[in-house]
Amino acid sequence: MTTGKNYKKIIVLGGDGFCGWPTSLRLSRLGHEVIMIDNLSRRRIDEESGTNSLTPIQPVDMRLRAWEEVSGNQIRFHHIDIAEEYDRLLSAICEEKPDVIIHFAEQRSAPYSMKSSVLKRYTVSNNVNATHHVLCAIVESGLDIHLIHLGTMGVYGYGSEGVRIPEGYLDIEVKTDKGDRVHQQILYPTNPGSVYHMTKSLDQLLFHYYNKNDRLRITDLHQGIVWGTHTPETQADERLINRFDYDGDYGTVLNRFLMQAAVGHPITVHGTGGQTRAFIHIQDSVRCLQLAVDHPPELGDRVLIMNQMTETRRVIDLARMVSRLTGSEIAFVSNPRKEAAENELHVDNHKFIAKGLVPVTLNEGLMMEVNEIAQKYAYRTDYLKIPARSTWTKEQQPGEIQRPYVDNFK
Amino acid sequence: MTTGKNYKKIIVLGGDGFCGWPTSLRLSRLGHEVIMIDNLSRRRIDEESGTNSLTPIQPVDMRLRAWEEVSGNQIRFHHIDIAEEYDRLLSAICEEKPDVIIHFAEQRSAPYSMKSSVLKRYTVSNNVNATHHVLCAIVESGLDIHLIHLGTMGVYGYGSEGVRIPEGYLDIEVKTDKGDRVHQQILYPTNPGSVYHMTKSLDQLLFHYYNKNDRLRITDLHQGIVWGTHTPETQADERLINRFDYDGDYGTVLNRFLMQAAVGHPITVHGTGGQTRAFIHIQDSVRCLQLAVDHPPELGDRVLIMNQMTETRRVIDLARMVSRLTGSEIAFVSNPRKEAAENELHVDNHKFIAKGLVPVTLNEGLMMEVNEIAQKYAYRTDYLKIPARSTWTKEQQPGEIQRPYVDNFK
Repeated sequence: MTTGKNYKKIIVLGGDGFCGWPTSLRLSRLGHEVIMIDNLSRRRIDEESGTNSLTPIQPVDMRLRAWEEVSGNQIRFHHIDIAEEYDRLLSAICEEKPDVIIHFAEQRSAPYSMKSSVLKRYTVSNNVNATHHVLCAIVESGLDIHLIHLGTMGVYGYGSEGVRIPEGYLDIEVKTDKGDRVHQQILYPTNPGSVYHMTKSLDQLLFHYYNKNDRLRITDLHQGIVWGTHTPETQADERLINRFDYDGDYGTVLNRFLMQAAVGHPITVHGTGGQTRAFIHIQDSVRCLQLAVDHPPELGDRVLIMNQMTETRRVIDLARMVSRLTGSEIAFVSNPRKEAAENELHVDNHKFIAKGLVPVTLNEGLMMEVNEIAQKYAYRTDYLKIPARSTWTKEQQPGEIQRPYVDNFK
Repeated sequence: MTTGKNYKKIIVLGGDGFCGWPTSLRLSRLGHEVIMIDNLSRRRIDEESGTNSLTPIQPVDMRLRAWEEVSGNQIRFHHIDIAEEYDRLLSAICEEKPDVIIHFAEQRSAPYSMKSSVLKRYTVSNNVNATHHVLCAIVESGLDIHLIHLGTMGVYGYGSEGVRIPEGYLDIEVKTDKGDRVHQQILYPTNPGSVYHMTKSLDQLLFHYYNKNDRLRITDLHQGIVWGTHTPETQADERLINRFDYDGDYGTVLNRFLMQAAVGHPITVHGTGGQTRAFIHIQDSVRCLQLAVDHPPELGDRVLIMNQMTETRRVIDLARMVSRLTGSEIAFVSNPRKEAAENELHVDNHKFIAKGLVPVTLNEGLMMEVNEIAQKYAYRTDYLKIPARSTWTKEQQPGEIQRPYVDNFK
């Protein structure tokens, strides 16, 4: 791989998904040759769950035809289940000889991964095998391919107890037999909060091992919660629109709040809302992927881990922002997660900033844009799908609205 | 589960294997009710590889009939592939309602796990799903079951760089935002040396998560390299004999040396032999399992991790001991592993010692016993299977004998 080359051949695994689709379009617009691979499992899960994207996303082939019309660029598509069809994945890699593989192809909802024994097992088997197959196939191909993986801030656990979360590696001191203190740098001790997040912790170990044994070039991006839905490319034509999940399993917190406000549903906060989370706008997420493509680690470097987030916020503060903006009420429901009611979170994200990321932070304009999307497609809403019904243990109750909200700090 | 109860109902997953079989017999002899579950994959791998146990092990049903004749105790057997047949595993657990499940049911050879892409993928998928299925099934059963898992010293990596390897958890100091140093206790940073060892690192994270989220009682035993083959129970009748692997994939180092000496093959040392490893005799391994059954962690405790090893030795020192004992020559072959030529290893094992383990350390009597077994069954040897042919990367050469041995320190 010539790292100085301007245009690269890039396979995007999971290219039909919420992050994969706008990333594929951006990279194609920039002149890279993009090949999408997807098993379309996110669409299947929608069918099985009776849910749907709030926005009317088009079938893959129509999406790709529209993109070619709009941009003049072709994106090819292979329908492959990388967790199940290793030989087809390997053939695609050997034939395409990509410079870069971006790996989004995992089941990515924490509540979905906690819903039942079947879905816990699906999530673990699917995600671990998907990642391991990509690694095995790169080794077997003998090609020098830069693998970029979408991880999650969730591998760090909930909260940081006064320690600024570094980018993947932690400096520690340990005592030797002789009583000396020696410095070491280790993978940040993982503490995932759901079966889904756990699979991303397992991925980290797979990357660590294959990087060490086979000298693979790997970038692992620990992403925060994505909000927003449009990028310049997905806005170029109605047929290119990105998916927008509002259901209790796949809808992420800020988008859910904005959508709830748009359709007149109370803004449902889990627990006290004292949980602090890391966020990033979809436009920055796509920009980060672009930066990761442009800055591969050197051959022989350890796994490059970057925190892909731009700000941290308490959930209750987001709810209040949305409430102020829209006039909607806030309702508290029990927290389905097993975590402390309140936490703090400090995160280092200097690597992307140093590479030129200028963060799109939370602002009313972009929040209202999401609200307008939600209003525009409100007719597509299934209100029954809005509440989160998954719980982390059998003892917990799904989050029904417990009491009307009275918030003096609104 | 009444922890004070003397006799327990125990499911042994992988009960037909090298550690599982003598453990099942010991627990049965002690009066526990033992149910073995196995998919017989180790026998299948032998068939596929053209290898065989040096000792003439009997089919499972004959083993169990012989045990009933000898001991008067019945061990029941279910032929279940726990990585593939979740529903049958769950049914067995719900019907048997065991107090304890001992989990040996994983592919356990490092060289086998490195042989090809197919076997890397088999090892990861089989081992991760096997362990995850057991955890899911325990949660789904709603029963309070003590899970005991056979892990490996290999999760710690090769060597310890002056730090005494603790029992699973490491005390560290980290700096906070304010510059204070705070103490934390973390899972020892994992650094597995093969795909097989990596799966045991993945297992650790699964245990950590399910212990945290579902309060499962879990004991994880990080075992050293087992040597020897007989226990009092497997010696009680020829039909109860334990397996003895001497091939390049499944044969473990000391047993291989003794067997090589017995059949007149040079003792093949990988690399310089400067690698230090942790060892345990099979009788102590079985005794440790017995102690783990007797000392479950309390409900709500974190995962109990114990180092199941009794001594550390340099490989070259073992080779010299065997050479002195038998008069055999030593031959050096290239090391198929990716590791430093020389290392040191200090390991804490006080938990088992405190529970009453009196280690069987390396001694000539027991080593000669293994040598005699090897001599007795030498007629069953396939000499072509003795060398290790697996390598950790494509660039490495399989370990052919490179030069005759001249060792002034013999």
